[in-house]
Amino acid sequence: MGYIDLRSDTVTLPTEEMMKEILAAELGDDVYGDDETVNRLETKAANIVGKEGALLVPTGTMGNLIAVMAHTMPGQEIILEESSHIFLYEVGGIARVAGVQARTLKGIDGLPAIDDIEAAIRQENIHFPETGLICIENTHNMAGGMAIKPERMNEIFALARSKDIPIHLDGARVFNAANYLRVDVKEITKHIDSIMFCLSKGLSAPVGSILAGTNEFIKRGRKYRKMLGGGMRQAGIIAAAGIVALDKMTERLDVDHQNAMFLALELNKLKGVSVEIDKVHTNIVNVDFYETGYKIPQLVNSMKDRGLLVNPRNSRLIRFVTHRGINKEDIYRTIEIIKDILK
Amino acid sequence: MGYIDLRSDTVTLPTEEMMKEILAAELGDDVYGDDETVNRLETKAANIVGKEGALLVPTGTMGNLIAVMAHTMPGQEIILEESSHIFLYEVGGIARVAGVQARTLKGIDGLPAIDDIEAAIRQENIHFPETGLICIENTHNMAGGMAIKPERMNEIFALARSKDIPIHLDGARVFNAANYLRVDVKEITKHIDSIMFCLSKGLSAPVGSILAGTNEFIKRGRKYRKMLGGGMRQAGIIAAAGIVALDKMTERLDVDHQNAMFLALELNKLKGVSVEIDKVHTNIVNVDFYETGYKIPQLVNSMKDRGLLVNPRNSRLIRFVTHRGINKEDIYRTIEIIKDILK
Amino acid sequence: MGYIDLRSDTVTLPTEEMMKEILAAELGDDVYGDDETVNRLETKAANIVGKEGALLVPTGTMGNLIAVMAHTMPGQEIILEESSHIFLYEVGGIARVAGVQARTLKGIDGLPAIDDIEAAIRQENIHFPETGLICIENTHNMAGGMAIKPERMNEIFALARSKDIPIHLDGARVFNAANYLRVDVKEITKHIDSIMFCLSKGLSAPVGSILAGTNEFIKRGRKYRKMLGGGMRQAGIIAAAGIVALDKMTERLDVDHQNAMFLALELNKLKGVSVEIDKVHTNIVNVDFYETGYKIPQLVNSMKDRGLLVNPRNSRLIRFVTHRGINKEDIYRTIEIIKDILK
Amino acid sequence: MGYIDLRSDTVTLPTEEMMKEILAAELGDDVYGDDETVNRLETKAANIVGKEGALLVPTGTMGNLIAVMAHTMPGQEIILEESSHIFLYEVGGIARVAGVQARTLKGIDGLPAIDDIEAAIRQENIHFPETGLICIENTHNMAGGMAIKPERMNEIFALARSKDIPIHLDGARVFNAANYLRVDVKEITKHIDSIMFCLSKGLSAPVGSILAGTNEFIKRGRKYRKMLGGGMRQAGIIAAAGIVALDKMTERLDVDHQNAMFLALELNKLKGVSVEIDKVHTNIVNVDFYETGYKIPQLVNSMKDRGLLVNPRNSRLIRFVTHRGINKEDIYRTIEIIKDILK
Repeated sequence: MGYIDLRSDTVTLPTEEMMKEILAAELGDDVYGDDETVNRLETKAANIVGKEGALLVPTGTMGNLIAVMAHTMPGQEIILEESSHIFLYEVGGIARVAGVQARTLKGIDGLPAIDDIEAAIRQENIHFPETGLICIENTHNMAGGMAIKPERMNEIFALARSKDIPIHLDGARVFNAANYLRVDVKEITKHIDSIMFCLSKGLSAPVGSILAGTNEFIKRGRKYRKMLGGGMRQAGIIAAAGIVALDKMTERLDVDHQNAMFLALELNKLKGVSVEIDKVHTNIVNVDFYETGYKIPQLVNSMKDRGLLVNPRNSRLIRFVTHRGINKEDIYRTIEIIKDILK
Repeated sequence: MGYIDLRSDTVTLPTEEMMKEILAAELGDDVYGDDETVNRLETKAANIVGKEGALLVPTGTMGNLIAVMAHTMPGQEIILEESSHIFLYEVGGIARVAGVQARTLKGIDGLPAIDDIEAAIRQENIHFPETGLICIENTHNMAGGMAIKPERMNEIFALARSKDIPIHLDGARVFNAANYLRVDVKEITKHIDSIMFCLSKGLSAPVGSILAGTNEFIKRGRKYRKMLGGGMRQAGIIAAAGIVALDKMTERLDVDHQNAMFLALELNKLKGVSVEIDKVHTNIVNVDFYETGYKIPQLVNSMKDRGLLVNPRNSRLIRFVTHRGINKEDIYRTIEIIKDILK
Repeated sequence: MGYIDLRSDTVTLPTEEMMKEILAAELGDDVYGDDETVNRLETKAANIVGKEGALLVPTGTMGNLIAVMAHTMPGQEIILEESSHIFLYEVGGIARVAGVQARTLKGIDGLPAIDDIEAAIRQENIHFPETGLICIENTHNMAGGMAIKPERMNEIFALARSKDIPIHLDGARVFNAANYLRVDVKEITKHIDSIMFCLSKGLSAPVGSILAGTNEFIKRGRKYRKMLGGGMRQAGIIAAAGIVALDKMTERLDVDHQNAMFLALELNKLKGVSVEIDKVHTNIVNVDFYETGYKIPQLVNSMKDRGLLVNPRNSRLIRFVTHRGINKEDIYRTIEIIKDILK
Repeated sequence: MGYIDLRSDTVTLPTEEMMKEILAAELGDDVYGDDETVNRLETKAANIVGKEGALLVPTGTMGNLIAVMAHTMPGQEIILEESSHIFLYEVGGIARVAGVQARTLKGIDGLPAIDDIEAAIRQENIHFPETGLICIENTHNMAGGMAIKPERMNEIFALARSKDIPIHLDGARVFNAANYLRVDVKEITKHIDSIMFCLSKGLSAPVGSILAGTNEFIKRGRKYRKMLGGGMRQAGIIAAAGIVALDKMTERLDVDHQNAMFLALELNKLKGVSVEIDKVHTNIVNVDFYETGYKIPQLVNSMKDRGLLVNPRNSRLIRFVTHRGINKEDIYRTIEIIKDILK
């Protein structure tokens, strides 16, 4: 019997239809622009998020790194939420490779306050790096998968526009956000300059993310992709699954969200266990086990012994992530396992 | 009717068996080390080149860049042949990303002379960057796919060892070299510290290259792969084809080499056309059209009009590359097309 | 009549004795190690802060940048207080040149809490940059020149030692700190791995700062100084004044501190003006004019019109810095000017 | 008795008049633009080389590094002569700090052939870094201080202009070149985009170099100078000597050149010793001792034992550099010492 794997939606396996499309894909050398499957995916992706152009990249990390490189000059400063994925989980690439300084701000439900952003934008002064970019994350992973409403983002867009500073959206799970908010994804992306979103994770493609923006931006990005070593050859075998992901998989995220909410509500009932229910928006549930008296590493191991895989978030939280590989039965079983451990 | 595509062996499409294996592949999240297909490929690849460990990367460019990063400190200098792929065709990533200075040396049939390398290794002096790495390329693309004999490399290895400088082999087409030299690939790789070789190109996998070296080196490399955005998730769909490439495709390179030599000999007979036959070792043929009086861009266009795709090398040479997608018929037809143009 | 210049202690002019020593200095080419005046200064400076070796650098910014480069690998992360000079006022050099990611923490009176530092030190994880350095600033400029007690620093040293992470002290005004704390400067520097301090500022040398640490560290630093272009030739003309600064100028900082405190107490009495008196430790006074209803830029201009130069800190604070060029008369006059404006 | 120091003109000590001007200099904080002596020097220097603006930097290495940073984007490629000072003797800063790839070309008497430069300029291609800058060196140190005629440079300027690529001149000893060529220095600088020249070396100032170019370029350069840590405070003590250097010292270079030529002619007469007399243009003499049978390190030591300091150039050449600290007597004595060793 396999594990119930709630570590991340990155573990999702491709669908049968994806594998069929991979097999049938028209391939070519994408460095020469000859892979028609890649071309189809990039056109489709750009349309969906309402941008001029798009670029297939092997990972979300590369998509974000290219975005930072293509928007900034080394030596500039970029503004980020302090627990953003780009800052915490991308190996410091923005410093080493892009050469920019991270100006991190505390977020409220994943988004810094507008006043803090305004205060962080640098004046002209010989001592200061220039502010070259603002990055936003939606849904926000470390904030428990919370979706940020377009209205909240709009005042940041207005500020950035007035200062001529571009905005990049780390939208690894932007379709989860759109689903929760019940809006077309274009409502979220319409004022931003660039977006990265993943074909893997909830959308279930095995590999691949998309970077989208203006044609000019994508042209620069294509060159940086080559420099970093992301210019794959017959990338159509990846793109084929990505097309299915975009065509067929965005609506089923609802199921993941329902499963997450059910799990959150049930776990919240357990003695010593608490979940901030109003922060459970999508497919991520941060569960606080502090009051149970158990140490987190011990809990994670006990769960593993019982067939449940999860990732600790910090010294009091464990993160549970639902995805296409998890059904209602798995959720029931998860709850049973935890009850069993805590009893 | 399709084109005869002799631009590069990068255009090669995957075999049916590869597609079957992709479909059947056991997948997992490779960032967690859970993709058994990737694990199998990396173990196999390390064994074949006689190294402790190996790492699947999306492209050869990334493999080379990671190698430079993992062997050097930014601010060091690396020694390269002046027309090497790393220096000429990898977008300056060694400077921008790895932060090293390129010390380029003229090669003889793709390899700099031992005395030039010795003279280029920096003494200790406060004005000098340290020499951190020597890179070799085999087969050497710009030298017309020439294979460098292990004996020629050995004195460089001895020198490098005595100075404690590591050697990286850009072996994008190292199996072509081994095939031509009639040696096991380990004869070529045994004294080097790291190698990158491609699963695409002549081996026909759609995507992917391998970086191999000590376990310690691969550990550092794995982290740099993550930083650059090459840490793919269900990478088994790529690895599955790579396993077939290594198991089944290295021996058929002979056919490409025979086709290349036949093409070289025939074109060399044409008036005004010349090929250095003794430099045609593998699947690349540089053909000199200077004496025909035709301009290269004009020739390339005329070939394209007749269904033949090639890449110009410079103002007098056109490069022809044979691969699995080219059979004897295509070679005959290529010769006919060129005769027709020149008549 | 000249201005009363309270913008910064960087405006201090050299003493007569300094100019005399500059004239008399034995010079040589310091790149060859031949400048005896530089050698004497470096030996003296290393002794004063209790380190093996020292290096003369043109500015404190270069000293801090070299320290970060010599302690870290590009791609690592360094921990800094969020309003530290290195992070806010050094043009992003740590990102562009040193390639490290800044992990900024909120300080209490200039120093982050030990728990925050501990939580910020990265675990081993493929997604994470390594923590390569912790930087401390004493006195802390943006905290109003507060001096941090050795006891408060000690627990950070113990933590850093246990994790094998070096500590660099930005001690641009470390002699102000030692003076306020009534300790020998070695009490402040004894547990740190490296320190930068300025010969200019309160010590009144025209140009120059010192970086000190182990001989091994200084050797690396000397090379980075050459790379950045800080390896000056007859640097003895700078060093000569630096020797006077160290021999004669550290004790007179007391006068600056008394002048600053007197100014603080008097301004604090004015209606709508407030100063946190317990935070006035050394020669910097942050004065809050918010309740006066005046806008800061307007106040700064009015002061300038009346012969008083100051720098705004933010939208409610103005910074006043005392130094050798300011006597008690100037302080009285400053108070009168401000009274006149606010009346 | 002191040594005769022919290692480099960097060992030159300041003149009495310089020391007097240092003492009398009006100082201020140059970061605030308040040092009138610096301002005077920068205006004067810009005028002399016919550029809009100029910037005082602590060293020529920093001036060249700032020029590369201010002209290029990281990831671009720059064209340099293969034995240029920037490439060989500046610690790899152009790679580590500026992030550019060095494309080195063999020079003829210090200048690459126009055809080689044209061939090295990159076409637009996704695999290629862009060519961002061409660097020239005049006089050329490693070519034995040869001065390059404006006519030879002009065709490079025309080519660069047609491709929209800027040109930077490493003119560390540009006044030696102007003196040899009997032209105003503006004849050499008029078509270039930026120049760095040294106030130290033959001009005898203790410290300092100048970077000059358009106001826009100097503005960017000023910020990079701050980033690198070259923004000194009371820099007037350096600038004061620099003003004397420009006003009084450029014409006396003639004496150094005559001394160098006399030394060259005399040494060339010795058995086994040879000098390419037609390459002795300025104050550098490369002397070939190969035919004497002596090893270079041995010769250098024997000279040192007899009171003569020189630097070896390679395994057959020793470099002798004349300067203000060397008079005709020293030259006679030098010749005697060498005769004595070789007899």
